Amino acid sequence: MFRKRHPPVGSRPGTLVINAHGRRPTIRVMKYDPEHLEEHKVSKVGELRNLLEENRICWIDVQGLGDEKVLRDLGELFSIHPLALEDVVNVPQRPKVEQFEKHTLYITRMARLHNEAQIDMEQVSLFVGSNYVLTFQERHGDVFDPIRGRIRQSGPVLRKSGADYLAYALLDAVIDAYYPIMESLGEHLESLEVEIIARPRAAILQQIHRVKRELLAIRRSIWPQREAINTLIRDENPFFSDMVRLYLRDCYDHCVQIVDVIETYRELAGGLMDVYLSSVGNRQNEVMKVLTIMASIFIPLTFMAGIYGMNFENMPELHTRWGYPILLAVMVVTAVVMIVFFRRKGWIGLRPQEHERGTDEAAG
Amino acid sequence: MFRKRHPPVGSRPGTLVINAHGRRPTIRVMKYDPEHLEEHKVSKVGELRNLLEENRICWIDVQGLGDEKVLRDLGELFSIHPLALEDVVNVPQRPKVEQFEKHTLYITRMARLHNEAQIDMEQVSLFVGSNYVLTFQERHGDVFDPIRGRIRQSGPVLRKSGADYLAYALLDAVIDAYYPIMESLGEHLESLEVEIIARPRAAILQQIHRVKRELLAIRRSIWPQREAINTLIRDENPFFSDMVRLYLRDCYDHCVQIVDVIETYRELAGGLMDVYLSSVGNRQNEVMKVLTIMASIFIPLTFMAGIYGMNFENMPELHTRWGYPILLAVMVVTAVVMIVFFRRKGWIGLRPQEHERGTDEAAG
Amino acid sequence: MFRKRHPPVGSRPGTLVINAHGRRPTIRVMKYDPEHLEEHKVSKVGELRNLLEENRICWIDVQGLGDEKVLRDLGELFSIHPLALEDVVNVPQRPKVEQFEKHTLYITRMARLHNEAQIDMEQVSLFVGSNYVLTFQERHGDVFDPIRGRIRQSGPVLRKSGADYLAYALLDAVIDAYYPIMESLGEHLESLEVEIIARPRAAILQQIHRVKRELLAIRRSIWPQREAINTLIRDENPFFSDMVRLYLRDCYDHCVQIVDVIETYRELAGGLMDVYLSSVGNRQNEVMKVLTIMASIFIPLTFMAGIYGMNFENMPELHTRWGYPILLAVMVVTAVVMIVFFRRKGWIGLRPQEHERGTDEAAG
Amino acid sequence: MFRKRHPPVGSRPGTLVINAHGRRPTIRVMKYDPEHLEEHKVSKVGELRNLLEENRICWIDVQGLGDEKVLRDLGELFSIHPLALEDVVNVPQRPKVEQFEKHTLYITRMARLHNEAQIDMEQVSLFVGSNYVLTFQERHGDVFDPIRGRIRQSGPVLRKSGADYLAYALLDAVIDAYYPIMESLGEHLESLEVEIIARPRAAILQQIHRVKRELLAIRRSIWPQREAINTLIRDENPFFSDMVRLYLRDCYDHCVQIVDVIETYRELAGGLMDVYLSSVGNRQNEVMKVLTIMASIFIPLTFMAGIYGMNFENMPELHTRWGYPILLAVMVVTAVVMIVFFRRKGWIGLRPQEHERGTDEAAG
Amino acid sequence: MFRKRHPPVGSRPGTLVINAHGRRPTIRVMKYDPEHLEEHKVSKVGELRNLLEENRICWIDVQGLGDEKVLRDLGELFSIHPLALEDVVNVPQRPKVEQFEKHTLYITRMARLHNEAQIDMEQVSLFVGSNYVLTFQERHGDVFDPIRGRIRQSGPVLRKSGADYLAYALLDAVIDAYYPIMESLGEHLESLEVEIIARPRAAILQQIHRVKRELLAIRRSIWPQREAINTLIRDENPFFSDMVRLYLRDCYDHCVQIVDVIETYRELAGGLMDVYLSSVGNRQNEVMKVLTIMASIFIPLTFMAGIYGMNFENMPELHTRWGYPILLAVMVVTAVVMIVFFRRKGWIGLRPQEHERGTDEAAG
Repeated sequence: MFRKRHPPVGSRPGTLVINAHGRRPTIRVMKYDPEHLEEHKVSKVGELRNLLEENRICWIDVQGLGDEKVLRDLGELFSIHPLALEDVVNVPQRPKVEQFEKHTLYITRMARLHNEAQIDMEQVSLFVGSNYVLTFQERHGDVFDPIRGRIRQSGPVLRKSGADYLAYALLDAVIDAYYPIMESLGEHLESLEVEIIARPRAAILQQIHRVKRELLAIRRSIWPQREAINTLIRDENPFFSDMVRLYLRDCYDHCVQIVDVIETYRELAGGLMDVYLSSVGNRQNEVMKVLTIMASIFIPLTFMAGIYGMNFENMPELHTRWGYPILLAVMVVTAVVMIVFFRRKGWIGLRPQEHERGTDEAAG
Repeated sequence: MFRKRHPPVGSRPGTLVINAHGRRPTIRVMKYDPEHLEEHKVSKVGELRNLLEENRICWIDVQGLGDEKVLRDLGELFSIHPLALEDVVNVPQRPKVEQFEKHTLYITRMARLHNEAQIDMEQVSLFVGSNYVLTFQERHGDVFDPIRGRIRQSGPVLRKSGADYLAYALLDAVIDAYYPIMESLGEHLESLEVEIIARPRAAILQQIHRVKRELLAIRRSIWPQREAINTLIRDENPFFSDMVRLYLRDCYDHCVQIVDVIETYRELAGGLMDVYLSSVGNRQNEVMKVLTIMASIFIPLTFMAGIYGMNFENMPELHTRWGYPILLAVMVVTAVVMIVFFRRKGWIGLRPQEHERGTDEAAG
Repeated sequence: MFRKRHPPVGSRPGTLVINAHGRRPTIRVMKYDPEHLEEHKVSKVGELRNLLEENRICWIDVQGLGDEKVLRDLGELFSIHPLALEDVVNVPQRPKVEQFEKHTLYITRMARLHNEAQIDMEQVSLFVGSNYVLTFQERHGDVFDPIRGRIRQSGPVLRKSGADYLAYALLDAVIDAYYPIMESLGEHLESLEVEIIARPRAAILQQIHRVKRELLAIRRSIWPQREAINTLIRDENPFFSDMVRLYLRDCYDHCVQIVDVIETYRELAGGLMDVYLSSVGNRQNEVMKVLTIMASIFIPLTFMAGIYGMNFENMPELHTRWGYPILLAVMVVTAVVMIVFFRRKGWIGLRPQEHERGTDEAAG
Repeated sequence: MFRKRHPPVGSRPGTLVINAHGRRPTIRVMKYDPEHLEEHKVSKVGELRNLLEENRICWIDVQGLGDEKVLRDLGELFSIHPLALEDVVNVPQRPKVEQFEKHTLYITRMARLHNEAQIDMEQVSLFVGSNYVLTFQERHGDVFDPIRGRIRQSGPVLRKSGADYLAYALLDAVIDAYYPIMESLGEHLESLEVEIIARPRAAILQQIHRVKRELLAIRRSIWPQREAINTLIRDENPFFSDMVRLYLRDCYDHCVQIVDVIETYRELAGGLMDVYLSSVGNRQNEVMKVLTIMASIFIPLTFMAGIYGMNFENMPELHTRWGYPILLAVMVVTAVVMIVFFRRKGWIGLRPQEHERGTDEAAG
Repeated sequence: MFRKRHPPVGSRPGTLVINAHGRRPTIRVMKYDPEHLEEHKVSKVGELRNLLEENRICWIDVQGLGDEKVLRDLGELFSIHPLALEDVVNVPQRPKVEQFEKHTLYITRMARLHNEAQIDMEQVSLFVGSNYVLTFQERHGDVFDPIRGRIRQSGPVLRKSGADYLAYALLDAVIDAYYPIMESLGEHLESLEVEIIARPRAAILQQIHRVKRELLAIRRSIWPQREAINTLIRDENPFFSDMVRLYLRDCYDHCVQIVDVIETYRELAGGLMDVYLSSVGNRQNEVMKVLTIMASIFIPLTFMAGIYGMNFENMPELHTRWGYPILLAVMVVTAVVMIVFFRRKGWIGLRPQEHERGTDEAAG
């Protein structure tokens, strides 16, 4: 469900809603040019001031939003607009890109898979300046370790490129992290389909409902990113070079592809719902058939037995020698006629050949 | 349901439809510049004329639309176009922004939560001139008290800024007031989901229907506000400075986020409906199974008993020593066979393990 | 259902399809300037020619389309393009605005409520020239009497303004006439909701279907009017002044609001359908429970009675003193066990607390 | 179902797929100016060459596409682009307009009603040059006879106008031919609604499905025509004069109106489906009620009778004088109680007043 | 389900994910001008370098993506941008067109039908340079053999035209290959409809679900191709001549037509689902009717028999001469009354005339 840290109605803009239980921010700095690399763990914002340098790219990564003073100090140091700082702290914001004088703010949402099933979402805010990238994350832990690894290597493009390329790499990592989630959801849908056909249960419907909810949540976070990246690509922006814009097109394509897959999955989930409901209906039908067959065969027979259980004095059949065997024969014939009737109707014996499924791999 | 105060068909434009039971308007004035602040409660529009001043920002807040004369006088004093005055009085109007020579008219809709469940909607009309904001509210009571508080403090930006900033602050308060409502609806949906799984009842469906209706109502009031704010941001407008437009972007983002959440909730509500219907279907299935099992076990047994209740003279079984115990044994075997059959079908004993729900927090 | 007076396939354009049973046209003329007002009832088109005057506004109102000659003469007198005349006569046309050299043609659809339930639709075509408005109506009777009243008064704006203002007033009357219809439909939906919860019947579904059909019909007539008015506002047009365009914006807002309400109502009607179906399902469930309870309690008891109704010679229980009372006791215990079982399942006694509805007024 | 004459995958563009069973083309020529009219039936394309003349309008109508040579010769004579010829022959193409140097190609789809129920669709391709219209039809027989009649008359506009006007007249005939089909479908829907309420049967659902399928087919052919005509109206085109473009606006309006009606019908058909399903549900409910009532009344009575059919020696009631009448009385009371109970529940006697339908004509 | 070869999250852009089980690439070259044609099978990229020539068109076709070195070498030889090479290898990509300095990259998806039922999708990437076309396919085998055949003939346009025409021919073959698939799906839907009416089974629903899934997959691959071709047609592109753009319009039309057919099929599949569910409902209804009729007829009779099976001493009817025959007569009358009642209700004898289907061919 939607829960947002928002200030009381009518507060002045820029009011920060600090989560009292949030982790204190830790600040990690990577400063590099093609030849050098320094890594620092900073405890006070003041120390940061000395680290910033004209000629090197600096990535300041803030994890945890639990201390208003640190955030305000950072805001002041990097000339962050109060509304932008509010967007960073009062999560979740809708992913978007906003252009300021000294930097571009890009708000994105990072998704990670916990324990194969739990999707964990977290807002990541990037300020991209001419020679620095400042990132804010809600919690510790992220998907950026491979990027850190690439920075630590002295070879690759990343070390030779500007802050915009670093920002692209981070964005790319955030977007790419949706792929394994989509695949996990796809496998979940597939296993649900198998289960529905094998044994439809109420719990499956709730699981479909949950998958749909997760798809909605992912769509809500990926859809606006698509627009935001498009804005970066299309609009004039002093902090992003043409080369990086070309790379961002790739990010954009990935967003669009994920949105496509989400829509397909949502339709598949809807289809599964139909298959489930019809499976349940079939089971119900089978229950009814059993009841009808049992009742229809035995009710007339019981009636016949009832007739000759009556105590009328004048019932000549009762006194004949062959009355009892004849009645038994009539009963057998009646039962057989009923059974033949039900067999004709296809209620007995002709069990529907369910589950005849080929392999279908075309949905790739 | 939709109910609008509209004049008789064919009336001249500008006809005001005064609600005879409406409260008489009360007029409250706050006049301020960075150094000074005056607050007045005005009973006649004439007094108002003397209060307006070139160099100070003036917020005239009219609560209650029950007196045509006062409204006409205000219209005349502020040179309000007859159609604009009609829009103010003949509520509800669709939220919109309209540009006039002397001011901008912004019609918005304020939502408040009554008693945790009741959503109360009210039209608020703002005329934003060069040095005044004139607001009309349908009823007494609003969400603007924090704004009044901020004006009364001598420090903040609000006191130093123009009428456009005040208008922004009011708009922002109106939009932000939707957040607690969305959260309340989200919690309602969550509790409905828990209830549906625990004990599906017809009343829950009506509650889902009600939540959907409320979502429709909120969407109908927030969607056009999105357009209206966008108009303010995008179009040339002499009464709104560039700085305030930047702030309005923030408002706009909030509108879009609320619309997103509404759409998600509507899809969730639709999904709940499906889960509900399937739960009801499962219950019905269970009822049918009980009936079928009872009937299928006892009907054949009763038939057997009926056979030996017949009064044929020539029924040799009746006279054997072990006839009765043998029949009882046959009956027990029959019953056991039936029970085994139903167990095989999964109708007995293998109760569906419902309610196996993990925690899923991904929908944030 | 859709039924259109269209000429045979392949006819030359401009072919008029005269409804043989249509009323003969009556022509009423109101000619006015701020000081003077003349009203005429004209029987021949020839007389009309003398009435037209440069300096006065002339409203020629033609009711009834049953005489081709009169229509052709009018077409000639006002230089109406053959296609335009075809649009006037071969009703219904889609509402639209079309620009000709000597006038603007505006085709609208007037809706009136008959006997509180019946919606009556009729095409009204307006030709707006520099100093005249020529209106064609399908039948006698319209929603324009208040406009006539306003013309007859010597005071108001209408008398002092041009033909475009008159056209606006007529359009405004047509659009405003949709409001009472929407309110009537809204009340119908509300009463249906109450009925569905109180006593779901098949007839209610048909009524929902009917409301939906009416909403579709209204939408089909109001939606294109929205576009048409927008065209009038936006496009260059020699016959409409800027002042009147401002007034037309108001009309446009009303159209949009009506469309909004229609969409909301359609979703509400869809929701009612769901509530209805689920109510019916609940009733069915209740029927099944009664059957299951009755059958499950008495079938085992009947079986027991059947056992001791058998005529085996060797049934020692039959000859004991306490056999009968003990069996009765066993039967009572069995019945009690069944009842407790059903109570546990919630099938007896714990009746669902239906109809727990609060008042919800938020859908305004 | 969709079936297209398409060449083998990878063929060179312009490959014609001749239907071996198609009729051999017959070529009819009408050549006219305001004073003269000649009609010819041509068997070889060579003869055609001599007939074409600068100063006269020539309509060459080719019916049947079963001879590749004739088609290739025509293509050469009129300088038809190979892709255009492919579009003419490899039917069905999506309706569209395409601009070539010497003519405009307009591909449309003609619909005719067979035997009041069967909709027959056929592609008609028009090449409109400066002084000729060349039409290709799949089969013999069309909706153009009234056009031929109008050409044969010496008076009307058609004879005095250019090839573009003739093309418009043909297009107009094609579009107008959809109106009777829409009316027939509308009447079908109405009669289905009456039947559903009177006696819901499975066959009705299949008929609704069929109507929906036909609506889909019609929409698929009319929707692109709307775009195509719009292209003709809007784009520069040397072969269409401004006057004819005005007439084409009329065609365009008709297309839009037909699309509107199709959408309305589709929603009505969807609504009918709901009414049908709920009618079926009601019937099922009624069946269940009868079963429940019968079973619930007689099962307890049968149980009582069973009790006193037991053969216990010690059953004092059996030997009392009034035992039998008292039991009968108890049975009657039990039955009455059950009946009262079911009456209270509304299952007996209070039959739902179905079919209370007023007349509703508002859907025009 | 969606499965994509994507590099680990956070990898540097251009990382290729080689499928270890993929086939080693085979490289086939066709080099031609109007007079000459050479065909080569190349095993090393080095050999390729010597084959490229200014004056001839060269088609290099790479099948299999299982060897990174070969791909990297090709990338270097043709100056392929790392991101472009990534798009080629890390399949599936969304179909798209991308403009580079030395060539245009067009990513498409080829669909083939396996064994009449299995749809096999494969990404084909085309690099179109000034005098070469370089194609990459995932697997061996394709739909391009007719193109190869046309190249081998010395006559046709293909040999005389540039690389852009070859690219068009390949694209056209890819798109046209969707037609037989659509027809196969259409026939599947038709046969499902026949089966549903004849004998609704759960397996049919799963088949409908499968058809829907395949339609989704096809739509996901054809929809973006539509955009991509449109980009080729509309945008400036040095590698595509105006003549070829005209041909591409034809491709575009085919895409649009296939999308139309997909949408129609999806709605038909949805309709089939409704027909299926209602057929199942009808069957269930029939089962219930049989049960109700049997039970309702025999339960009262059994009760009557039970009455006279009681052992009361004082039951005068038992001792009358005509008691037994009279009771039998009463029983027959009761049964007849019940049967007449059920016949009146239409439950017996008046079997619904299902399956009355005419031939309907209008959906073309």
